[in-house]
Amino acid sequence: MSQPVLAVDIGGTKLAAALAGPTGSLHGVRRVATPPGGDAATLWETLTELIDAVLDGSRVAGVGVGCGGPMRWPEGVVSPLNMPGWRDFPLRAALAGRFPGVQVRVHNDAVCLAVAEHWRGAGRGSADMLGMVVSTGVGGGLILGGRLVHGGSGNAGHIGHVVVEPDGPLCGCGGRGCLEAIARGPGLTAWAMRQGWIPGGESAAGTVRPASYLEATAASGRQLALDAAAGDEIALAAMSRAGRALGVAIASAVNLCDLDLVTIGGGLSQAGPPLFEPLRAALGDHTRLEFARRVRVVPAALGQESGLVGAAALVLAADRY
Amino acid sequence: MSQPVLAVDIGGTKLAAALAGPTGSLHGVRRVATPPGGDAATLWETLTELIDAVLDGSRVAGVGVGCGGPMRWPEGVVSPLNMPGWRDFPLRAALAGRFPGVQVRVHNDAVCLAVAEHWRGAGRGSADMLGMVVSTGVGGGLILGGRLVHGGSGNAGHIGHVVVEPDGPLCGCGGRGCLEAIARGPGLTAWAMRQGWIPGGESAAGTVRPASYLEATAASGRQLALDAAAGDEIALAAMSRAGRALGVAIASAVNLCDLDLVTIGGGLSQAGPPLFEPLRAALGDHTRLEFARRVRVVPAALGQESGLVGAAALVLAADRY
Repeated sequence: MSQPVLAVDIGGTKLAAALAGPTGSLHGVRRVATPPGGDAATLWETLTELIDAVLDGSRVAGVGVGCGGPMRWPEGVVSPLNMPGWRDFPLRAALAGRFPGVQVRVHNDAVCLAVAEHWRGAGRGSADMLGMVVSTGVGGGLILGGRLVHGGSGNAGHIGHVVVEPDGPLCGCGGRGCLEAIARGPGLTAWAMRQGWIPGGESAAGTVRPASYLEATAASGRQLALDAAAGDEIALAAMSRAGRALGVAIASAVNLCDLDLVTIGGGLSQAGPPLFEPLRAALGDHTRLEFARRVRVVPAALGQESGLVGAAALVLAADRY
Repeated sequence: MSQPVLAVDIGGTKLAAALAGPTGSLHGVRRVATPPGGDAATLWETLTELIDAVLDGSRVAGVGVGCGGPMRWPEGVVSPLNMPGWRDFPLRAALAGRFPGVQVRVHNDAVCLAVAEHWRGAGRGSADMLGMVVSTGVGGGLILGGRLVHGGSGNAGHIGHVVVEPDGPLCGCGGRGCLEAIARGPGLTAWAMRQGWIPGGESAAGTVRPASYLEATAASGRQLALDAAAGDEIALAAMSRAGRALGVAIASAVNLCDLDLVTIGGGLSQAGPPLFEPLRAALGDHTRLEFARRVRVVPAALGQESGLVGAAALVLAADRY
């Protein structure tokens, strides 16, 4: 394949695009902020301007896109939660109109991250893996028998909605006790602040903050992870809470799907041992069948360009993904 | 394919074998009790006598076998929990020696039941399904994208070890709060008897039975299901307990694997509404994402020959299973 592939990564915060060579190496990566509150036309215009700048006149052999869900798949009709301007927007069809005669594929962004880790990251060589991202939400993609599992509606890999506590906290999906309800960054920071956590500082358990303080503090999961790594007790307790929930959900996935590897990316995965130790303890408690004990849980290997690499793989390794 | 396939179903209670035509129709089905406490040679001799009687001199195009787990797969080196005489018994190799030149495949019995439902039962036409059996244990097999998912070690489909209550009862696997720990027949009947259930009779909540009574009563999950259907309050509570646990585990599987169908067979599935109503309620509570709501949960359609049909499919539809 002599012509490059156009890789696009669409999220509520930023849009990114690049040209990808046959092995997934990226060239001319460009990013632009997602226009806040942009309507459908504004979002499309921003995207096409970004793409034109990346292309700079080159022709491409195909287009791979990762986009926030939900979406109708494989049609690529998208309604990203964090981009209210696109509701049932026919993203794949619109791109196909702009790139006639070449393959255009659109998949969920979390799926692209999993594909990237399997194709070029920590999952290389694994036949059966779950690639996870733990960030504002908790998502993932499932590779079984060396191939991406799409599921009946393109939604396989929703590890964030595996139930870890049937009577647990309400989840954004409307359910209860989903992994995401406990381990997503905002849920975890809110829990930590209710326990008295002061982002970036030394916090004392038992200090109660007024609601206005909670609302005013835009503390991220990443800050919580840093504070835990620095020894903050409440931040450590929060990481332990998330780690145990992750361990239970991963155990269920391993027992059901007979996995050999789980990769974890996203802001919370930066926490290191304060997250991974309770995670591995809970995972060990709940994977007692011999076949399940072999599973390894490792941090994702690719950085912020992971989404673009996975999007490129949708075209460059379409036989597997 | 003019010659039939030999189908074999090996369990701790009985061995069964039959000849299968190309569409899975069975001929000359024979059964024999598994010799209790039989050593490796006795078990093998019983099996080969059964097979010889079924063959009656005919030649076969292949051999498909379902056997109790665990096993090393695809080698078919089996160590069935309920057949202590076989530990690391090379079942596939032994059969291949007896049937030179034809395909011999061995898989877990629960996987064969799921394959049978997908091939010829309630799962026909479904691309993404979980076939479950709820009986002495809770097992299953996973079909995704129209093909059987084997998993890295042939153990995909272990829905019985999806965690439904992280701090719940101890499971036979050594873990805690697995679906099987709550919903397996013996666990459920023991729970019901602790609540005062009198098998086959009207029971009064609060009646405490001495341990010797519990041990002496070999009440089955099937009896519990019958009593629930007849309106026994404790049996109803037990079915509700099992149904909720099943609903939570199925929800996790649906969210993770994007399934459109779950079939449930085994003795407990005879309970009807007392099991399926709480199951569907819990499932509904925990499948709130749009894609997950489409899942249907139905009773398995095939009866006691299901295991043989699935074993035959391992050879007759080896491209999918």
